[in-house]
Amino acid sequence: MTLPTDAFAFAPGLALTRRLRSTPFTSRVEAAGVRSYTVYNHMLLPTHFRGLEQDYHHLRRAVQVWDVSCERQVELAGPDAARLAQLLTVRDLRTFAVGRCGYAPVVDNDGLLINDPVVLRLANDRFWFSVSDSDVVLWAGGLAAGLGLDVTVHEPDVWPLAVQGPLAEEVVAAVFGEQAREIRFFRFAPLPFRNHQLVVARSGWSAQGGFEIYVDDAALGGELYDALMGAGARYDIGPGCPNLIERIEAGLLTYGTDVTRADTALEAGLDRYCSLDAPIAALGIEALRRQATAGVSRRISGLIIDGDAVTPPRDPWPAHAEGSTAGQITSAAWSPRLATNVAIGMLAIEHVVPGTALTVETTAGTRRGTAVEMPFPGASQR
Amino acid sequence: MTLPTDAFAFAPGLALTRRLRSTPFTSRVEAAGVRSYTVYNHMLLPTHFRGLEQDYHHLRRAVQVWDVSCERQVELAGPDAARLAQLLTVRDLRTFAVGRCGYAPVVDNDGLLINDPVVLRLANDRFWFSVSDSDVVLWAGGLAAGLGLDVTVHEPDVWPLAVQGPLAEEVVAAVFGEQAREIRFFRFAPLPFRNHQLVVARSGWSAQGGFEIYVDDAALGGELYDALMGAGARYDIGPGCPNLIERIEAGLLTYGTDVTRADTALEAGLDRYCSLDAPIAALGIEALRRQATAGVSRRISGLIIDGDAVTPPRDPWPAHAEGSTAGQITSAAWSPRLATNVAIGMLAIEHVVPGTALTVETTAGTRRGTAVEMPFPGASQR
Repeated sequence: MTLPTDAFAFAPGLALTRRLRSTPFTSRVEAAGVRSYTVYNHMLLPTHFRGLEQDYHHLRRAVQVWDVSCERQVELAGPDAARLAQLLTVRDLRTFAVGRCGYAPVVDNDGLLINDPVVLRLANDRFWFSVSDSDVVLWAGGLAAGLGLDVTVHEPDVWPLAVQGPLAEEVVAAVFGEQAREIRFFRFAPLPFRNHQLVVARSGWSAQGGFEIYVDDAALGGELYDALMGAGARYDIGPGCPNLIERIEAGLLTYGTDVTRADTALEAGLDRYCSLDAPIAALGIEALRRQATAGVSRRISGLIIDGDAVTPPRDPWPAHAEGSTAGQITSAAWSPRLATNVAIGMLAIEHVVPGTALTVETTAGTRRGTAVEMPFPGASQR
Repeated sequence: MTLPTDAFAFAPGLALTRRLRSTPFTSRVEAAGVRSYTVYNHMLLPTHFRGLEQDYHHLRRAVQVWDVSCERQVELAGPDAARLAQLLTVRDLRTFAVGRCGYAPVVDNDGLLINDPVVLRLANDRFWFSVSDSDVVLWAGGLAAGLGLDVTVHEPDVWPLAVQGPLAEEVVAAVFGEQAREIRFFRFAPLPFRNHQLVVARSGWSAQGGFEIYVDDAALGGELYDALMGAGARYDIGPGCPNLIERIEAGLLTYGTDVTRADTALEAGLDRYCSLDAPIAALGIEALRRQATAGVSRRISGLIIDGDAVTPPRDPWPAHAEGSTAGQITSAAWSPRLATNVAIGMLAIEHVVPGTALTVETTAGTRRGTAVEMPFPGASQR
């Protein structure tokens, strides 16, 4: 097998069985030449098509369609849905009107991160938690069962399809009509496609702008994919996926890679999504208030790593400062635009100061690193 | 990339990042030439080494070491551990003395399968649920939080290493001493390795006999792997993994492939692990009692599929009987020993009768199928 030179470390192959769920878009994605997958919420997620750098440049210049079906929805519905939703997240959901969405960290009683979903309020008594890679449906369902709440908790068959890039609005407006342009950032609205109303949100896991379309009818999936590709032809649309380089530059964390169940929401740097001053009954909020008062001992940080292009880390790279452990680097990639390696790591708090010098034990040897703020310069073009 | 002819459908590649966790044995597994992985409980699980058929013959003839670290342990410990454990599973755990392990289905209030773990009773107030592919730690943790139970729920760092095959006992006795031979089926005992006590169980995901060693010290992992390989050299030991052909013949189901959250424990054919007559407070047991009384409308069945070797299904194959839908085939592989394709499917109950003729829409075209009992003849040599 030939290893791409501008991509991830590769395993010999991925054995495909039903357990690694396909999506309504998988046939399109494979016809478009997907070159690698990862597995996310028991589902296939493409990780590159032409190459990390080519995909990166194209995403920043034009527009891409992404199969992000793996962003599974955990639906809470019924009289106690709002109560359960607020127990699950430390973000104040009283500020979420119907039609609003946003990041809302889910933590346990110790403030440790269970998930960093985007929450959509579909109705006063109906929510979707659009989750990263952990079975939130089990956490929410267990809590509801234990508390005897009057709420249904399930994962409906909804497969988000993202349209990302500076020209995304042109494509989505061409397919869904001009009203798509009216949707503000982190807001959503039902829009018609083939006589079917689909939830369309202005959101997505890049800093290039765009939309996420919540497809709730598998039979419509292929048609929508093709319609977007057709309407986007004049905008140089192409297949894509969350891009490692772009998301590091944007400071977007991956749950399971950059932060895990061993980190609190504050250590993960999600402070702005933690409503610590709000009178809400969220699990774990007391633990986070205590930690906020005491101060965190470590936190997520951006870094640059000197030297030529590194291969992205498969396992965390240790970071040192003046000979002692300073933390670990969990994501890294060469940025062709910034002409350096950009990275994300978890560092002891005294090193989370822009300009702090570190040494990083990369797979390619010891390199000099420097803590920097995220997002990286020019990550967003808006 | 060259596609093996006797293996799974393959994706172009698997992008390796921290989120798809490596194990203490990964370096050994890769040095031994693993040719494909799957992802299971957010962790890498090898799926073949030399080829499905070669691995199959070797497993039935000799002995293999398997990295099954992905069988994560969910630990319940504390005053309410036994109460929570019994809430989680419909199997009567009063029959589980310390040192006993066994299958114990975890279901929700509707009897729908959340997981089909092996439960180990480590102490009266301490259990491990050795789980298949879903985050049981979240279900158990949510329940405990909701009920306010006095129990800790977490996933300790324990990486099971299996030794499977007819000569497994020779190898394990050579490494752990003769007392290993005294461990009975689905029993476990602490045995010494390098002055460290490891839980060793006579269990495993094959019908060839063997042991699972619960390694709770990553630094010891490589040493143990090498010690087993060294002691096994005279028995033709080799690297291996759960084998698709062997596990179908044995009637071992894969959660997520053969059965899912949409199936009850009875539809999954796990009747013998459901203590429906016991006075236990398990969640979902009432739903299962009602279903047992009414009778299930569908159930897991074995099948043979005529014709030459099929490529294992990536997505389920529809099955028909007399022109109408009869169910779907979720696992299938060519058995070189039985000289036919062996399969597992979910069929409408009227077709779960040995000898029932079906047609199956395989990737290779329409084939004739026949419902049969599992395990298949000669699956176990004991």
